[in-house]
Amino acid sequence: MSSACTPYELYSKESGKSYGNQPLSICDESFTPLEVRYDLEAAKPLFTKKIVEAGPDNMWRYRSLLPIPEGFEPDLPVGFTPLVRAKNLGKRLGSQNLYVKNDAVCFPTLSFKDRVVAVALANARAFGFEVVGCSSTGNLANSVAAQSARLGMKACILVPADLEPAKILNTLIYGARLVRIDGNYDHVNRLCSLIADQYNWGFVNVNLRPYYAEGSKSVGFEIAEQLGWKLPDNVVVPMAGGSLIRKIKKAFDELVYLGLVEKKHVRFFGAQATGCSPIAQAVKNNTETITPQKPSTIARSLAIGNPADGPFASRMIRETGGWAEDVSDIEVVSGIQELAETEGIFTETAGGVTTAVTAKLIAQGRIAADELTVVFITGNGLKTTDCVADRFTLGRAVRPRLTDFEEYINELDGVAASTAEPELALAGGN
Amino acid sequence: MSSACTPYELYSKESGKSYGNQPLSICDESFTPLEVRYDLEAAKPLFTKKIVEAGPDNMWRYRSLLPIPEGFEPDLPVGFTPLVRAKNLGKRLGSQNLYVKNDAVCFPTLSFKDRVVAVALANARAFGFEVVGCSSTGNLANSVAAQSARLGMKACILVPADLEPAKILNTLIYGARLVRIDGNYDHVNRLCSLIADQYNWGFVNVNLRPYYAEGSKSVGFEIAEQLGWKLPDNVVVPMAGGSLIRKIKKAFDELVYLGLVEKKHVRFFGAQATGCSPIAQAVKNNTETITPQKPSTIARSLAIGNPADGPFASRMIRETGGWAEDVSDIEVVSGIQELAETEGIFTETAGGVTTAVTAKLIAQGRIAADELTVVFITGNGLKTTDCVADRFTLGRAVRPRLTDFEEYINELDGVAASTAEPELALAGGN
Repeated sequence: MSSACTPYELYSKESGKSYGNQPLSICDESFTPLEVRYDLEAAKPLFTKKIVEAGPDNMWRYRSLLPIPEGFEPDLPVGFTPLVRAKNLGKRLGSQNLYVKNDAVCFPTLSFKDRVVAVALANARAFGFEVVGCSSTGNLANSVAAQSARLGMKACILVPADLEPAKILNTLIYGARLVRIDGNYDHVNRLCSLIADQYNWGFVNVNLRPYYAEGSKSVGFEIAEQLGWKLPDNVVVPMAGGSLIRKIKKAFDELVYLGLVEKKHVRFFGAQATGCSPIAQAVKNNTETITPQKPSTIARSLAIGNPADGPFASRMIRETGGWAEDVSDIEVVSGIQELAETEGIFTETAGGVTTAVTAKLIAQGRIAADELTVVFITGNGLKTTDCVADRFTLGRAVRPRLTDFEEYINELDGVAASTAEPELALAGGN
Repeated sequence: MSSACTPYELYSKESGKSYGNQPLSICDESFTPLEVRYDLEAAKPLFTKKIVEAGPDNMWRYRSLLPIPEGFEPDLPVGFTPLVRAKNLGKRLGSQNLYVKNDAVCFPTLSFKDRVVAVALANARAFGFEVVGCSSTGNLANSVAAQSARLGMKACILVPADLEPAKILNTLIYGARLVRIDGNYDHVNRLCSLIADQYNWGFVNVNLRPYYAEGSKSVGFEIAEQLGWKLPDNVVVPMAGGSLIRKIKKAFDELVYLGLVEKKHVRFFGAQATGCSPIAQAVKNNTETITPQKPSTIARSLAIGNPADGPFASRMIRETGGWAEDVSDIEVVSGIQELAETEGIFTETAGGVTTAVTAKLIAQGRIAADELTVVFITGNGLKTTDCVADRFTLGRAVRPRLTDFEEYINELDGVAASTAEPELALAGGN
């Protein structure tokens, strides 16, 4: 693999000030988040279809437009998840051209956070941090724990105390230190800023945030490449802090600039749970001002009441002609079931949000049936089983004999018949 | 994608009888399992490095050596999971050339069963089955439920009543009918044979078994391709029914026959839990006779007491100069932790078995430090969290203030110091 890199640096779009490369996330003049800026002219010979396609089958095939420090050789095969044609789901929702980008099977920890962590830890190592960490609603905790274990770095991870059991176990298993904070994500996040100021620790989503956020671009690159180097008409993306949706746009814009895809007007749609929908509210109110909310939703991985990138996400969505919607917790669970039953993909609550919002947007006529629409599923259903478990009742245990089995199936079919559910057609036996 | 297929048919190695293509698993003369046989000469122009590498990034790139019915266009992007260089785990176990083939992130349901189900359902559809099903210890149930949902087929799945909750939920979520049987896997499996005889249902691991089993070959193809078209010195594979390990060998042999890899003497090592180790016992006793066991192990996905392919697996392992080992349930959990802490990969109990057996084989000197060894991890840790959850205690919830955080970390470090665990070095703060 070529190790050629495109020069990059931190800068503030608002103040215009450059910061070189250092662990810093906020401009000291404009107090707005720093971004990574590339020398895109230098990228032209490095980021071509041919070079990308000859690269490894993971996100590092896009390394020349990611902030990877000179000399760092990434070897964890993160990303390059399936883009699945979703005919069945499309049929149910009313779209003939629907795709699911499925990070529920992302390596190594089954969420898109693996992408951002991979980039952040490459930089953490280059900056010489001995301890890395994060504030997390769960998926990020899993990913930092797993990837820091592999890189041989110590990790200290802060989460809200009421996090789902599977996400807590999936952090502890890697040997990371987990600190449960008596508060919501916004409390945890503020504490992490204090810790990062006080100690020489690399917090992936605090002082390493500009690098971290760039990792999300890999999703945009993959969508375009997997569509045969073209852009979709619409993307539907879940929103927590508001960064992901912006970075997918940045990836598309870079591909257009480099001439790898044709310029196209892509509309961006944001998805939130009603119980934590500050960005969706801002979009609906046509404002960039985020009114913080106290989260109350089962979609805990999206439960950021005061999203750092909210103002920019709101503006960007409106500028592209997109929209944002939110759905109730009941709709979230239905969204999870709908995606599972139609496409065989089991997603966590955030994916339920995205699926249910997509249904809503199609029903509203904001997304047309024939438009190529990509729905981004960001995490796996096995992490939030508690939210759906009570939808199902376990049948009784049946003795292992044919007559007992038949009796049981007929029992179920009797019930099913009364609820108009299709039978298994035991009568078709011979 | 080329849709050219290699002609194939069912036959019995023992009786020599051919059966064409039909839903049948046992030879009526020799009473041994049927196998799929290909016209390998016809495969030569279809299965080349160039054609494979130009194929999709999933197991269908190997379709010309899989039994895919004419006209079936597979579209679910199953397989092509990461092959990870495991330097840290190798260091801990004493191997300098260790790889992990990681089906814990297999699409769509996070286990290698997705591969076999994909091939079985392609055939189920071609044979016209309206209902498909399986007997399962969990992973297979998940995969049949997910993939049949996507294909629009009805599914009826039989499992032992005491299956792990995550595996039950991960079946129900797709809308499949699940029947819990009051018995172990062997009871369930026998009942499924009766049902398959009685009704016109396609049971992937009963009457579709010969096709199903061939799906495992894709792992062997991937390992060889991902190593740069060469074979490893050793593979370590978990054993339940004993089919998987044989099919990986079959894949390697086919690659050698077609000239895609150099001929090499690969040794095959089988891994079981001591609480269900009929094949390992047979290997150790140098016999092909399997003495059935009543399973008692947390590694339920391997808990098949009377393995159908056991005799053949035992013989094959001995013939390659390999070996089989088994480990206690305590070692299984340690194996899970070891893999997570070193490589950031969280596997289910079966992967704990494989990791712990690998450690044992290296310690015994059966696998040498410099040999290229591939360990096959077949499933995800989020499916069997109950087995490891009690290893961890949740710390108390900490108030979101810097002083509270520092107090808590110092508390932990005090405990850690007394157990010689490394600190997080709060003292390094400024």
